[in-house]
Amino acid sequence: MKKEIVIGIDIGGTNTDFGIVDKDGNILWNDSIKTAQYDNIEHYINEISIKIKTILKKFKTDFIVKGVGVGAPNGNYFTGNIEFAPNLKWKGIIPFANLLSKELNLPVTLTNDANAAALGEMIYGAAKGMKDFIVITLGTGVGSGIVVNGELLYGHDGFAGELGHTVVFPDGRLCGCGKNGCLETYASATGIVKTAFEKLDNLKNHSLLRSIDRITLSSKDIFIAAEKGDKIALEIFEFTGKVLGLKLADAIAFSSPEAIILFGGLANAGEYIFTPTKKYMEYYLLPFFRNKVKLLPSLLKKQNAAVLGAAALAWKI
Amino acid sequence: MKKEIVIGIDIGGTNTDFGIVDKDGNILWNDSIKTAQYDNIEHYINEISIKIKTILKKFKTDFIVKGVGVGAPNGNYFTGNIEFAPNLKWKGIIPFANLLSKELNLPVTLTNDANAAALGEMIYGAAKGMKDFIVITLGTGVGSGIVVNGELLYGHDGFAGELGHTVVFPDGRLCGCGKNGCLETYASATGIVKTAFEKLDNLKNHSLLRSIDRITLSSKDIFIAAEKGDKIALEIFEFTGKVLGLKLADAIAFSSPEAIILFGGLANAGEYIFTPTKKYMEYYLLPFFRNKVKLLPSLLKKQNAAVLGAAALAWKI
Repeated sequence: MKKEIVIGIDIGGTNTDFGIVDKDGNILWNDSIKTAQYDNIEHYINEISIKIKTILKKFKTDFIVKGVGVGAPNGNYFTGNIEFAPNLKWKGIIPFANLLSKELNLPVTLTNDANAAALGEMIYGAAKGMKDFIVITLGTGVGSGIVVNGELLYGHDGFAGELGHTVVFPDGRLCGCGKNGCLETYASATGIVKTAFEKLDNLKNHSLLRSIDRITLSSKDIFIAAEKGDKIALEIFEFTGKVLGLKLADAIAFSSPEAIILFGGLANAGEYIFTPTKKYMEYYLLPFFRNKVKLLPSLLKKQNAAVLGAAALAWKI
Repeated sequence: MKKEIVIGIDIGGTNTDFGIVDKDGNILWNDSIKTAQYDNIEHYINEISIKIKTILKKFKTDFIVKGVGVGAPNGNYFTGNIEFAPNLKWKGIIPFANLLSKELNLPVTLTNDANAAALGEMIYGAAKGMKDFIVITLGTGVGSGIVVNGELLYGHDGFAGELGHTVVFPDGRLCGCGKNGCLETYASATGIVKTAFEKLDNLKNHSLLRSIDRITLSSKDIFIAAEKGDKIALEIFEFTGKVLGLKLADAIAFSSPEAIILFGGLANAGEYIFTPTKKYMEYYLLPFFRNKVKLLPSLLKKQNAAVLGAAALAWKI
């Protein structure tokens, strides 16, 4: 019997990664193109389709292609559209799943990148066997994929799971969404750099971070300084963990998950982000939720995670 | 063919209301006992069972009794237990559904009172035909029942939907749960009275509320003053709506509901609470959620709402 495979496509603002994935999460082939080089969606669809059709000619003799899963910023599962994505060049509403499905002659399912990550963890990663969990993606922004009773939570119009835009400080930092004080402005890779500027300005301690040009200062620099015991760097992680822990406690009060999984850039800071986040999450939890909800790192390999997440979606077709 | 009926039981800290309900939400018979008079759970179960068995003898000739639904504070749907309810005299874990089922020889399903209210709205009230909505109960405390894709959200251990204990101000008012700054300490009948004290102390305006003894000052007094155009009373509702609207916006970002339904005491203040809550809910929403999510009053009759909610649970058996 021919083995089944799917195609996973992860659309980021900079790159689009895609690959052929089997049921066990092995990536049998992968490639990428530069998303930002395509002002025109038709050219982009054309380019990616040619690459996929070429490789599928080889695979089709031994495998059955079940379908295509796409993880995209502002991707709507119900419509298959990418809707008003601020970090993509294609403006307005793009009927992405339809366009790609016509080119490839395969079923295409699309969702946002955080939902794809949640499916990836459920099928291939840290949430194997779980039915109720939340994946928080800590990247340039903060996203979330919420799984309830074994199914992704989409809500009435397909946009559930925007925990990055719940409010921490009503009069806080201006967010890309136009509001103030969203979690994303504190717990993202860009948010933690803003916290670094504040701490460097408001505290007097010596810090390795003071010698780094503010234009280039990154979350990775803060991690490296923390590893060297830099007090301000540790203070930055403490504050970030406090804000994140507070909002995770809110999320637990909402959906009572078995686990919360941290995924992406900032989660790679390991204990520096996990320890304060766990401490404050427990502190802000209703007593009967305490010491019950696991806080776990992603188990998807960093470079493949997004493609695996998108591929996981295709198995649901 | 015999018509089907169910029994709905609503357990409150003071009273327990129960009744026989048909599929259309008609209450065919109802009664109540004083919850607080029974220190011993066996005596309570015995008393309520005698009353129900006596009336069922009459009903059984014309009706089929499908089962019993119970709405209880800290009720766990998965276990049928009432667990550590602070406002009840029965301490620890009470296997309520089991105890009652043995006495009545009927299937008994139990959930918390806010979940029961949500089912009541879905089957008999404002959420008829909806699959994704949230009911917020604004009573002595603040509870919530979240419906996702037509099903109550219970989560991993049956305690999902504790929006009353999400945090508004991390260093804010002390909550009965032991934490600080929970929504419940602001948007409940007791919370709004605390806000009244703060406003009366911090503002200099003349107010009708100044002539009321603080020991007896209630949310109803604030409503009556607001109706007369009292500035401080209006200010109190404005602040309460701001806090509630903020947390409703968070809830919408989480589960993307079609509607939020306000139920119970404070919701009866009508436009005084709905207008500011709606204003701030929209203000704190992600732009693409704005002007899409309905904010509705409960459509369950006040005196019957809780019994109907509990009865709705029994139809799910």
